[in-house]
Amino acid sequence: MAWRNALRSLTLAGAILLATLAAVSAQTDPLPSWNEGAVKKAITDFVTRVTTPGSPDFVPEPERIATFDNDGTLWCEMPFYFQMAFAFDRLRAMAPQHPEWKTKEPFRSLLKGDVATAAKAGEKGLLAVVAATHSGMTVPQFEVLVSDWIKTARHPRFKRPYNELVYQPMLEVLAYLRANGFRTFIVSGGGMDFMRPWAPAAYGIPPQQIVGSSGVTQFRLNKNGKGELVKTAKVDFIDDGPGKPVGINRNIGRQPIIAFGNSDGDLQMLQYTTSGTGARLGVYVHHDDAVREYAYDRKSQIGKLDKGLDQAPKWGWPVISMKNDWKVIFPFEMK
Amino acid sequence: MAWRNALRSLTLAGAILLATLAAVSAQTDPLPSWNEGAVKKAITDFVTRVTTPGSPDFVPEPERIATFDNDGTLWCEMPFYFQMAFAFDRLRAMAPQHPEWKTKEPFRSLLKGDVATAAKAGEKGLLAVVAATHSGMTVPQFEVLVSDWIKTARHPRFKRPYNELVYQPMLEVLAYLRANGFRTFIVSGGGMDFMRPWAPAAYGIPPQQIVGSSGVTQFRLNKNGKGELVKTAKVDFIDDGPGKPVGINRNIGRQPIIAFGNSDGDLQMLQYTTSGTGARLGVYVHHDDAVREYAYDRKSQIGKLDKGLDQAPKWGWPVISMKNDWKVIFPFEMK
Repeated sequence: MAWRNALRSLTLAGAILLATLAAVSAQTDPLPSWNEGAVKKAITDFVTRVTTPGSPDFVPEPERIATFDNDGTLWCEMPFYFQMAFAFDRLRAMAPQHPEWKTKEPFRSLLKGDVATAAKAGEKGLLAVVAATHSGMTVPQFEVLVSDWIKTARHPRFKRPYNELVYQPMLEVLAYLRANGFRTFIVSGGGMDFMRPWAPAAYGIPPQQIVGSSGVTQFRLNKNGKGELVKTAKVDFIDDGPGKPVGINRNIGRQPIIAFGNSDGDLQMLQYTTSGTGARLGVYVHHDDAVREYAYDRKSQIGKLDKGLDQAPKWGWPVISMKNDWKVIFPFEMK
Repeated sequence: MAWRNALRSLTLAGAILLATLAAVSAQTDPLPSWNEGAVKKAITDFVTRVTTPGSPDFVPEPERIATFDNDGTLWCEMPFYFQMAFAFDRLRAMAPQHPEWKTKEPFRSLLKGDVATAAKAGEKGLLAVVAATHSGMTVPQFEVLVSDWIKTARHPRFKRPYNELVYQPMLEVLAYLRANGFRTFIVSGGGMDFMRPWAPAAYGIPPQQIVGSSGVTQFRLNKNGKGELVKTAKVDFIDDGPGKPVGINRNIGRQPIIAFGNSDGDLQMLQYTTSGTGARLGVYVHHDDAVREYAYDRKSQIGKLDKGLDQAPKWGWPVISMKNDWKVIFPFEMK
């Protein structure tokens, strides 16, 4: 077995060398979908500074922690959070077993496809929908539901699977950072168990590097005597706003040195990230491209970016104009 | 920069090759501090089965998750949890600022060094001590306190720093699993923030792979306008018993395929680990060596192993006899 390991390591060594040589020739531009400009320069300058041995800003690899919000930062979040689209689809699938929903808001309106009326039930109403659709099964059973949904559901405007609506320029940032020794984490207000079935393939980020909101899970021995985790309807942790630094400490245990977000829910993550010593970078994605995607900020119900826009210049955070900084938005636009 | 990366990768490739060749010659026995026997064979057989390509039990590397309890599994936990020794030392250091402790149990007894009387305050009393000594500072400030303590404090019996009281045979298991593509995690009832300052150096496990109990932390902007996390006195999560599978799902997001524990607090982690499909292994450490370490199990206040001893044969979990299976207990016994 030891010889097998030796051979595997030689193969690995060869693979590293080949990938590096390929990078040497291809990586004249590590961010090809980005237009030249201040934001792109801020990112590449930062990476160069923290990875150049001998630089006063050099950061050892284990401390190169990068965190990314998901909704609106790595993938689209309009016309409403994709996890809500999942919840609404689950609601319709479950409706036959829940005749009481026919007369109960926001279930009643959602089942009629009337999201606007349903929205009047506010956050409490939406939480009730999440609770009803995200509980009462084991974690692996929920994973199957999410995996099946992501394969079959289509976005109302783009008519594509939701996991194709990831941002190509951000995929390049993820790959670029990893190629430079960073460890990339998602730190999202979205559900941890909702992201883990599809995000690893979409972003190259493994389950243990996906931090998010969660419901209370309970361990039990099932009727076959096997141990399993059951998802309950109770909220455990909201990984949003001031919760993001908390989630970062809990699941990562180090302060990130670079973080990307797009809403006021990412404000504290960016503050936390850029408050440490040494080189730090916080970046906001600004949705200002109604033609290729959506344009929204200070007054949006979803992905509201108001305080963040005011704070960005004070903290020195570059703001990405999706319209001006990105050559393409989605991978399917690539030729 | 690209050429620098290429050179660095070549160096890395060389280092991997050298380490592997060294392993080929030295690793005739990957667990040299283990006596031959059923437990050692169960571990090495399991690793061979899940890492042999083409084997029906082969497990791809990303799914090779190994979890380890800490207290009593990776390091000693007697005469009481080392984190309590830290708390008692903190208590003494803080006492001048807390005259009220002179008349309040369990503080009063602890300050007199009378742990037995203090213990009568029960779990509630101990939690009060933890709350008083583990809150009211930022996470990095707490890290400094722990790092300073681990450098200076000495174990009452072994007269050595606590981080020297790790189990040599378990260090070998950690290295052996990692050499075979496993990712090793600590899943401990002990405090996450207490372990992270010293455990990475002691075990080769990075902070993001250290899961534990935690208090509520709060994000704030300090008077200099910098973002920081403050430790409060409120309990957030107890990563023990049925909490361990919950912590595993939260911080790892995959079911482990191998897990090590030593007490009833690890029972559910072992059940969860060995309930999945495919090859699985749960292992209990049994403290039966009063000469070289401590002997305790069913009736111990600390690290009680009672239900676990009954369950082990039913679930097929090997039980390590520290007395018979381990040639040495601590690294300092090595010649």
